[in-house]
Amino acid sequence: MGERVLVNGARLLDNLSAMSTFGINPHGGIDRAFAQESDRQVRAWILEMWARMGLETGTDAIANLWGKKHGSENLAPIVFGSHHDAVPDGGKYDGAMGVIIATEIMQTILERQIPTRHPLAVVSFTAEEPNAFNLSTLGSKVLCGRLAKEDLLSKTDRSGKVRLEDAVKELGGNLHHLDEARLHSGDIAAFLEAHNELGRQLEIRDLSVGAAASITGIYREKITVTGESNHAGTTMMQDRKDAFLSLSEIAAALERGALQRNSPEVTATMGYVNLHPNEANIIPGSAEGIIDIRTSNDEDLQFVLGFVEEAAEKARSRRGVQVLRECLLDQKAQPLDPFVREAILHGMAAEGEPEVTLTSMAGHDAANMQRIAPSGMIFVRSVGGYGHCRREYCRPEDIVKAANAMLFAVLELDQSMDAAKPQPAETAAAVNWEAAS
Amino acid sequence: MGERVLVNGARLLDNLSAMSTFGINPHGGIDRAFAQESDRQVRAWILEMWARMGLETGTDAIANLWGKKHGSENLAPIVFGSHHDAVPDGGKYDGAMGVIIATEIMQTILERQIPTRHPLAVVSFTAEEPNAFNLSTLGSKVLCGRLAKEDLLSKTDRSGKVRLEDAVKELGGNLHHLDEARLHSGDIAAFLEAHNELGRQLEIRDLSVGAAASITGIYREKITVTGESNHAGTTMMQDRKDAFLSLSEIAAALERGALQRNSPEVTATMGYVNLHPNEANIIPGSAEGIIDIRTSNDEDLQFVLGFVEEAAEKARSRRGVQVLRECLLDQKAQPLDPFVREAILHGMAAEGEPEVTLTSMAGHDAANMQRIAPSGMIFVRSVGGYGHCRREYCRPEDIVKAANAMLFAVLELDQSMDAAKPQPAETAAAVNWEAAS
Repeated sequence: MGERVLVNGARLLDNLSAMSTFGINPHGGIDRAFAQESDRQVRAWILEMWARMGLETGTDAIANLWGKKHGSENLAPIVFGSHHDAVPDGGKYDGAMGVIIATEIMQTILERQIPTRHPLAVVSFTAEEPNAFNLSTLGSKVLCGRLAKEDLLSKTDRSGKVRLEDAVKELGGNLHHLDEARLHSGDIAAFLEAHNELGRQLEIRDLSVGAAASITGIYREKITVTGESNHAGTTMMQDRKDAFLSLSEIAAALERGALQRNSPEVTATMGYVNLHPNEANIIPGSAEGIIDIRTSNDEDLQFVLGFVEEAAEKARSRRGVQVLRECLLDQKAQPLDPFVREAILHGMAAEGEPEVTLTSMAGHDAANMQRIAPSGMIFVRSVGGYGHCRREYCRPEDIVKAANAMLFAVLELDQSMDAAKPQPAETAAAVNWEAAS
Repeated sequence: MGERVLVNGARLLDNLSAMSTFGINPHGGIDRAFAQESDRQVRAWILEMWARMGLETGTDAIANLWGKKHGSENLAPIVFGSHHDAVPDGGKYDGAMGVIIATEIMQTILERQIPTRHPLAVVSFTAEEPNAFNLSTLGSKVLCGRLAKEDLLSKTDRSGKVRLEDAVKELGGNLHHLDEARLHSGDIAAFLEAHNELGRQLEIRDLSVGAAASITGIYREKITVTGESNHAGTTMMQDRKDAFLSLSEIAAALERGALQRNSPEVTATMGYVNLHPNEANIIPGSAEGIIDIRTSNDEDLQFVLGFVEEAAEKARSRRGVQVLRECLLDQKAQPLDPFVREAILHGMAAEGEPEVTLTSMAGHDAANMQRIAPSGMIFVRSVGGYGHCRREYCRPEDIVKAANAMLFAVLELDQSMDAAKPQPAETAAAVNWEAAS
């Protein structure tokens, strides 16, 4: 490959700063949830940036953003990118950094006029984070066929007032054309994603970057407790059916179960709670909570769920409430592709970094992409381990290292990958994003 | 007094049904919180009804509604009424029934052309229930001087977006003229309020009505836990500062403390909870809860608060969170007036009911009015003891009994009360509601 090509680090960091202005709040956090005004604005900004670079841009049926250049051979494209949405009051790195690193890699290849055998594409996925529609990694789930048109056409947000169909349409997608966005094995030669680690594994070992070997399983359940709304003064303590106290007991049991496993790879959280009617002088009549349990091991999951059921049963019998448990997500652990991982490790080595792999405790679009294409991830050290909050921080030198390692991996894969030549029909599907834009 | 005068029960029940249409939701509950559109609508309906009866109507500076007729002597008025707002998804009786009973009593006196020595006034108070401004019994608190202009001009709702000043203005009040709404001892000869009991004391004893001897003390505190928002997967269990789990522990301790007192006259509730950012995959960084403790006895209150502080201290030391405790309300128990109570008991006796008195475990506008005028309350049996919820129910025959007993009491007080003739200046204040309307 001759002399090693490096990204323009200053431009990368400038672009990341610019992207952080979309949805920034007075506390310095990012409010850029799916379908918010800031989501619409950042999408326009990304597409314009890619178009200026000379890429063929488009928006597919689920409103993922694409920017593509041709390759010298008739091969499936190598795709790299991440997502542009954020959790409420989130950080500047989660998703955005991966999109900007992908953009910088593409721009470097274009301006250096580096020939590639494969077409290359940058992607920015729709609704990776949990959102008002209770759908995370929405864009990549649709691409890999985990969600079909029928699942989505009836969806509304938590308020019941906004239809997913309308939200996607406003962003340039079209749920009725979802089948056109669907990709199959062979449509993409490889997928690569850079992301902040969000945890402390790299920091504890004083490492700048690491490659992901696999992505944790994620189990999510909605718990709805129905008790009885009643007056907080006139209802005697022993006459109550307090839905909040019941839910609290379940949350406490959830934590006890996870703590007993005593492993960095088992976590359990109740992050969402909603009471009704939620007034100081009314006993809560209903309480809804969402629990999130992460582990790669089914035995761990069942162990923690045992604590949840025990607490639910106690609430039913002692407090006379109903407890409804409803699984929202049961996503098994997803190993990533060893061949892509090797290329990323070579890139890290070229940067002088040790060839370290991790398990990701966060879900990522790459876990979905692995179902249809060999996929890999590179993690950037999260200072303090912060993730999904405005305190997220990655050091500039670590970010540039990750970009250079990933550029190395893309160029190596372009040379080494022996991708089967896709069928014309499937190629059409893979690039037919204009249909829905 | 010659033959006993009775209300028109059918009209009373019709008016109550009509009032229930304002803010009714698909579940049959009432959504008519302070400053909602349904609040504005019901206010117009009440004023129109009173004007049609021939009353002089007006709205005072805090937007309480008044309807008045003259008396034959230059005395302070006898006032009766309740409030028209409701808790979210509340019942059809709380507040509304008291307003309609007062209206029916006035209408009976008017159509029978019963002469009264005192002027009579019906009142419907502003914002009796807890609301987005964290102010309950707002209208009566202002009348009796518990809240001054300066306390209220800076108030905004929970979102921080709506100013109380603007909300009151939209309802026809004017915070800048609050001093004109203020009443003093002697401005009102007596105040009477009918209300559903909201508890089970009457039902347990199979009684239709009862007179209140006193109103419980109410203590309310906002608890704000500040932990650390972080990623639900990548943050190890032992690294967390989960604000929700801390708040849950405080709620559990609150219940334990109240249960240990083992008395129908000690209750404790956490009815309002708000997490931030409240997303399934983020550890709650902050959690806010409001606790409500009711008792007439300071020793009970301190006992329960001891449990709260112990749990708060544990959360601080074990979870590393901050716990801020802020008193919102510390309202001592309020005995009501014995002379007015006697008149109500006479009215109950005239209805063939036993002369029973209760302690009210709910706060009421009458507790504020007692500070400036001899005040009394009559309770109507709550079927099943339901209060502050859509299952509230009072039997028609019990409602009509209460109205007749209260009419009897009003007419007896009109004859028996030896009210000091008010000073002209104070009289002006008491009737000067037009200034702000």
